Amino acid sequence: MITSLQNSKIKKIIQITSKSKYRKKEGLFIVEGKKMIDEVDNNKIDEIIISESFAVNEVHYITKLKDKKIHIEIVSDSIMKHISNAVTPQGIMGVIKICTIPLDIVVDENPFIIILENIQDPGNLGTIIRTADAVKASGVIISKGSVDVYNPKVVRSTMGSIFRVPILEGRDIEKDIEMLKDNKIEILACNLKGSINIYDCNLTKGIAVLIGNEGNGLSDNITKLASKNIKIPMIGQAESLNAGVATSIISYEVLRQRYY
Amino acid sequence: MITSLQNSKIKKIIQITSKSKYRKKEGLFIVEGKKMIDEVDNNKIDEIIISESFAVNEVHYITKLKDKKIHIEIVSDSIMKHISNAVTPQGIMGVIKICTIPLDIVVDENPFIIILENIQDPGNLGTIIRTADAVKASGVIISKGSVDVYNPKVVRSTMGSIFRVPILEGRDIEKDIEMLKDNKIEILACNLKGSINIYDCNLTKGIAVLIGNEGNGLSDNITKLASKNIKIPMIGQAESLNAGVATSIISYEVLRQRYY
Repeated sequence: MITSLQNSKIKKIIQITSKSKYRKKEGLFIVEGKKMIDEVDNNKIDEIIISESFAVNEVHYITKLKDKKIHIEIVSDSIMKHISNAVTPQGIMGVIKICTIPLDIVVDENPFIIILENIQDPGNLGTIIRTADAVKASGVIISKGSVDVYNPKVVRSTMGSIFRVPILEGRDIEKDIEMLKDNKIEILACNLKGSINIYDCNLTKGIAVLIGNEGNGLSDNITKLASKNIKIPMIGQAESLNAGVATSIISYEVLRQRYY
Repeated sequence: MITSLQNSKIKKIIQITSKSKYRKKEGLFIVEGKKMIDEVDNNKIDEIIISESFAVNEVHYITKLKDKKIHIEIVSDSIMKHISNAVTPQGIMGVIKICTIPLDIVVDENPFIIILENIQDPGNLGTIIRTADAVKASGVIISKGSVDVYNPKVVRSTMGSIFRVPILEGRDIEKDIEMLKDNKIEILACNLKGSINIYDCNLTKGIAVLIGNEGNGLSDNITKLASKNIKIPMIGQAESLNAGVATSIISYEVLRQRYY
């Protein structure tokens, strides 16, 4: 059992939890809780860290993990408390391998792809991935300069959808958009000043929707790559919507037009 | 100029910022930044607190406030830094009077009312109020036991919509629902196990939509007051949506059915 914060494994976990650069370098990120760990394919689990108390109270769960030949490390309760980032720590965290996927995975039949430029709020990114899962989006493409998708707050707010939605992160989205265009996917920019409202726009064909930064919206460089500028109508006095909400409303309008 | 944290006004502001009970007792809450303050009716401003630097750099803005006979208090930059709760403090905060409105204000012609039971996340509540503004909802009714709508995080994430949407908070929603029913408003419970999906439900008549707690959904007691259980369809593997997102999707389906 590990009881010291000076232990090299503990130091590594703290680095992975807190630093995007370190996550990239190691190719690892952290998830917490049984529910999240249950979502992960065995071969993507690097190891599982559990607290002393968890080891005593969850024998059945641990046996299940051992049967799958997953490496388990026990740490003292106080170490777990220190390294956990959860609101209500459960005494179990998983060290998970970051897997990259190629762009062509999101180009399925009649795709609906979400492309995010420079999204900064972890909760917004997590929420968007959760909604993308609910509507079975073909994928989420995240630009370089956005918040790290493996940030613990993002991971937590996806509620497990991070393992179910094809995600490409740290992308040169200008390049990706050109490739999608070559595949006859229509590019729609979501803009406050868009000329077509989403209810008047046909969203049933293969599309990629561009969503911009919380404060500044889409950059001109990216906007000009789109064939249409769409907007969510607002009849009240709000100037704009939350970026996660806006993406979710468009995603559900895509679902409605395609299935209802 | 106030330079001490021991000053009674500064102590009061810190209490109002941090404690829901104190806000209720004093009938005051805090907003930060020029944009937010510009949203507030003059008669609701108790006073304005500005930093030394703001006083020097924003003479024109301050003259405007003085012309409106608004009381201004100057504090040192370090005091402002200490009492500000903003991500990027602007050097100006407003102490605002809490105004309560009667329930019948939300019962307008063909109303769309949002009723929240036990919402806990400040960001979710703020986002819901922001979307309610965008769709011009008749009002938002918030149950006792929910996060305080005057919590600085909620106020900030409404992006000013807190001043534009009729809001009733700390309510006995069981009682309110009965009153709305007496006014021929249909009560719809939003549930993961709802039997009618929102695209098959007529949302054009006067309705109130019930939204439950982030983790547990609506209580049975409240659910049974509804005439219908509606749901947002999910075709992927996500088990649920974020509460703010779910409320926003329903709000926009109401807008679509009524206007498009």
